[in-house]
Amino acid sequence: MAVNLKAPERLLAVAGARWACADAAIKKPGDDDIALLVLDPGATVAGVFTRNVFAAAPVIVAKQHLAARAPRALLINSGNANAGTGDAGDADARQCCAAAARALDLDPEQILPFSTGVIGQALPMERIVPAIDTLAGGLDAQGWLGAARAIMTTDTVPKGGSRTLAIDGQTVTLTGISKGSGMICPNMATMLAFLATDAAIPAADLDQALRTANAASFNSITVDGDTSTNDAAMLCATGAGVALTREHAQWPAFVEALTELMRELACAIVRDAEGATRFMSLAVSGAASIDEARAVAFTVAHSPLFKTAAFAGDPNWGRILAAVGRAPVEALDIAGVDIALDEVAIVSGGQPRADYREEDGAAVMAQPEFTIHIGLGRGDAATTVWTSDLSYDYVRINAEYRS
Amino acid sequence: MAVNLKAPERLLAVAGARWACADAAIKKPGDDDIALLVLDPGATVAGVFTRNVFAAAPVIVAKQHLAARAPRALLINSGNANAGTGDAGDADARQCCAAAARALDLDPEQILPFSTGVIGQALPMERIVPAIDTLAGGLDAQGWLGAARAIMTTDTVPKGGSRTLAIDGQTVTLTGISKGSGMICPNMATMLAFLATDAAIPAADLDQALRTANAASFNSITVDGDTSTNDAAMLCATGAGVALTREHAQWPAFVEALTELMRELACAIVRDAEGATRFMSLAVSGAASIDEARAVAFTVAHSPLFKTAAFAGDPNWGRILAAVGRAPVEALDIAGVDIALDEVAIVSGGQPRADYREEDGAAVMAQPEFTIHIGLGRGDAATTVWTSDLSYDYVRINAEYRS
Repeated sequence: MAVNLKAPERLLAVAGARWACADAAIKKPGDDDIALLVLDPGATVAGVFTRNVFAAAPVIVAKQHLAARAPRALLINSGNANAGTGDAGDADARQCCAAAARALDLDPEQILPFSTGVIGQALPMERIVPAIDTLAGGLDAQGWLGAARAIMTTDTVPKGGSRTLAIDGQTVTLTGISKGSGMICPNMATMLAFLATDAAIPAADLDQALRTANAASFNSITVDGDTSTNDAAMLCATGAGVALTREHAQWPAFVEALTELMRELACAIVRDAEGATRFMSLAVSGAASIDEARAVAFTVAHSPLFKTAAFAGDPNWGRILAAVGRAPVEALDIAGVDIALDEVAIVSGGQPRADYREEDGAAVMAQPEFTIHIGLGRGDAATTVWTSDLSYDYVRINAEYRS
Repeated sequence: MAVNLKAPERLLAVAGARWACADAAIKKPGDDDIALLVLDPGATVAGVFTRNVFAAAPVIVAKQHLAARAPRALLINSGNANAGTGDAGDADARQCCAAAARALDLDPEQILPFSTGVIGQALPMERIVPAIDTLAGGLDAQGWLGAARAIMTTDTVPKGGSRTLAIDGQTVTLTGISKGSGMICPNMATMLAFLATDAAIPAADLDQALRTANAASFNSITVDGDTSTNDAAMLCATGAGVALTREHAQWPAFVEALTELMRELACAIVRDAEGATRFMSLAVSGAASIDEARAVAFTVAHSPLFKTAAFAGDPNWGRILAAVGRAPVEALDIAGVDIALDEVAIVSGGQPRADYREEDGAAVMAQPEFTIHIGLGRGDAATTVWTSDLSYDYVRINAEYRS
């Protein structure tokens, strides 16, 4: 049961971007598991990828192709990650690109491949290639929601969102979809995200916008601290609409809208985290640096003891305090540490507050969604990280599912 | 159900060391929760303590007292950690020492206090102080096993062991007990360990022996990556027997016996880890440094996805590979990486092996105890780390228990 998350009712089409989906029987039959995003000529594309050294074959190929030429299509399969598959997996990823290129009359280097699912198994090429052959006929600008469903693995809810803003009297549309619910951690997670805007944006500027928004969205969530071999977040600018560069007065507004949308997509992954019953914000302030604030937030967010207490709705603040105390922060003085659950102050200046009442903490943690505030009292840097709890179902899903 | 772990049948008495226990009703009534270890005059004591900056009050007091004078007694309570208790907790720890000092006719500074259990609650001093008063009458050199029971919290099995070795024609005895089953991670865990030998060893040499043995035992285990506020491992040399210094020809044999015993006590904690159904060794070799080998081993050992796959007995080696790939190792070349489960080779030179059969991997992981071998192919450093799986019961225990 995802926490406060519903499937999007409607995702706005982006002029110059069309999707098609197919069922290659990689996942359970009847569910689409192949999606193709085709961009009009002249589009620019930016991407951020996993830093796992065992990057999957499609990640390696996608990075090569993105560096070589302006992409015209993105090809995604779910159900199989084509990771840990060695040289054969590399050849399969290239063969997928070749099949899409034939179907679209493009060069294979103009196709970016993506895979998500089980690690260590060969792609069923005998089913995937024929499925790709059918895709070119079904391209549809209204295909975002179908694509959001096609890229799901253990996700229980398709994830997507749209934003519009007015620039130079024209409406700029931003639409994105994401998938992921386990193996979620910064840099990156078992997650894929695909976004497009109809603005015309130079590739270098688009890349900068993506990296800025990514730091405050996909790189600020964690479910279990595991980082997958396949993660990527891609941003396409089709060029069908208004021209935009980083010099434009409205550029900050565009980046802000992009950041908000990516944060919505990233938080959707946490809300739909495997077995999640709580959605929690870890707001760390008073740090000497953003890195330090992130280190504290992620130490708490990754603590299995904190996460199981959250599952139980138990305001076991000792586990928060213990996690803060072991965070990799140089010479932390506990006399500066404050801890609060929403508006309920528990620790001030490193000391438990005499006015704290257990029932107040329990009332906060009984909610499906709340914020843990941690003040360090040593600087002005602050950050927020989002995470989920650790439940029986997390164990069940990951003990049963081969990912 | 602890993995391949039984309660010790017999723990050898150590001349010059006596234990007494009492029930102060901190845990469930009828179970002892106070233990006192009294050392003969002239004993030396060494200790290693948690690095958590929210070190509990007893840890702070024990470190102060250890630095000030040669300790004569160690006082432990279970059921309440006296952590996160601020200045009042500090006063309580000192009052416990004062009560023991009165009972034993010693100075409070000669007493080292230890607590383990729930964080953030005041010690029930009104019951603890009277219980301490009764202890002096019950001191017994045969009290090790009773003490092992008295210091348990969520442990299901009391943990202890003994070793003997001959030095200068005399028998040297080493006996130790430990407790802990969750919040287990290096530096240190929610663990306490108390060891004594009848040898006479200068304090500085004893400290060196303890640190050497600790690196290869308590600092090489992890259950959940959480580090508690209260951990300590203490080694006492009563001086009743043979004189021993680091210059003695048999010193390496003594340190080796100590290391073996501490490894047994440390692994007992992992075998009895909360909800554990598997006991796993992570043997990393071919690393450029020990730190690097440890980083890889702990990244795998902390991966919830690896740990849930282990619970399922699923040879999901992709999750091992993904964890190795995200370990904080500079410029790891996957072409050097080998992975094997016991004798079953799965990945060689970064490529999945054509001769690997899933049923061979499944046979290894069906066992309650096995080794994951990870070769990095970039140096000569190697290390082993021990860990457990992540099961439904881990979640149940930690969602229900207030620690």
